[in-house]
Amino acid sequence: MTEWVAGRTPVLESLRAGRRAGRKLFLLQGAKGLDAIRSLASGIPVVERSRRELDALAHGAVHQGVLLEADPLPVARLEDWIGNAFPDDAVAVALDEIEDPHNFGAIVRSAAACGACGVIFGKRRAAPLSPASLKSAAGAMEYIDLVRVSNLVRGLGLLKEAGFWIAALDAAAPTVLWDADLRGRIALVVGSEGRGLRRLVRTASDLLLSIPVSGPITSLNASVSAAIALAECARQRRHG
Amino acid sequence: MTEWVAGRTPVLESLRAGRRAGRKLFLLQGAKGLDAIRSLASGIPVVERSRRELDALAHGAVHQGVLLEADPLPVARLEDWIGNAFPDDAVAVALDEIEDPHNFGAIVRSAAACGACGVIFGKRRAAPLSPASLKSAAGAMEYIDLVRVSNLVRGLGLLKEAGFWIAALDAAAPTVLWDADLRGRIALVVGSEGRGLRRLVRTASDLLLSIPVSGPITSLNASVSAAIALAECARQRRHG
Repeated sequence: MTEWVAGRTPVLESLRAGRRAGRKLFLLQGAKGLDAIRSLASGIPVVERSRRELDALAHGAVHQGVLLEADPLPVARLEDWIGNAFPDDAVAVALDEIEDPHNFGAIVRSAAACGACGVIFGKRRAAPLSPASLKSAAGAMEYIDLVRVSNLVRGLGLLKEAGFWIAALDAAAPTVLWDADLRGRIALVVGSEGRGLRRLVRTASDLLLSIPVSGPITSLNASVSAAIALAECARQRRHG
Repeated sequence: MTEWVAGRTPVLESLRAGRRAGRKLFLLQGAKGLDAIRSLASGIPVVERSRRELDALAHGAVHQGVLLEADPLPVARLEDWIGNAFPDDAVAVALDEIEDPHNFGAIVRSAAACGACGVIFGKRRAAPLSPASLKSAAGAMEYIDLVRVSNLVRGLGLLKEAGFWIAALDAAAPTVLWDADLRGRIALVVGSEGRGLRRLVRTASDLLLSIPVSGPITSLNASVSAAIALAECARQRRHG
């Protein structure tokens, strides 16, 4: 199996992180500003191609003249990953059927920037690890732990056993994000943009938290909600 | 001049807000789930078209079987808009050359949901009011005040005269967002994703604020940064 990484930042970070082997690097003929990528790609065959050929390889992804054919990203099983030693204030993110690859990538980017220990997602109705989600993650996929679980509700149970509080974002929750104590080990659950949290996921959560909104626009984008909650976790860790 | 609104939520909210006249509503032949849109469109000619015809009208925008040809959105001049009576805790958002229409739309959506009084943008290097930005805004463009300024630095001066503190997001700033007092009238300035804030914009700001990040991924998406800062303004207004 092979994965395609498209775009300058995703390819640069994939080579820099070195968590998976690059197989072949495709660059646009005569493209400028690729010195950093070239120098990180030592040992990987580099070939130059026309824009038309790159477009065909990229299958619609935004490639900016750079495509890397690489080993697949390592994805852990939750049952294995949960055995790690997590700090007392670890933050994990769990996605309940986030299907949009841009939202998936954007959440991974925010999670990595906010120091989260991993992003957990189900096997069904989950956005793929595709060039589009890798592009939205701007390289963050290469660093954060990616964790797959067959059944998210069971996964939340394993997280609880490992000392995580399950805090799920729910626009209808009476408790406001900023009123909750989010120190300690927290697993933030983010529901799908259209349907929100599934009932069983809601039931399995310790805390249901809403982000206050006002006016006629009453919903936030899923990746924006996730970022606001991740930032609140970071703020509480900083301010105690 | 005419503007095209594409997609179910943007069209629904355009008709519901009623701030601009719809001219003609194009629906996919036989499409389901459009009753709310049809009932709001009374008085507007409705025509059914094939998917191929809608695709051609949409010029690549995601239309979900719904396209509205409408009057342009009203955009105020900052010199006029600044004469409004703003509440003492008003929050405005000012964009310093945000060129990506998805970021522009996403920021407008978060600004509207967080109760901001307006989104201010320059004439040069600004994302257009396009189907793509309207789609990312998920209807929010139809409600929030859109305000254009020829020169953002001069515009920040007018905002200061109107009692706004200028708080600009700057990843290199030593002051952390959460340590700043953001009550009172605040204009949040968001720089472009690639270049950040321009020097003169930075100089014109009262506060430069960073959002702490950790690990190898050191940058947040511009719309994510804006949402985190908007949420912090809302949190401080709630918690005093």
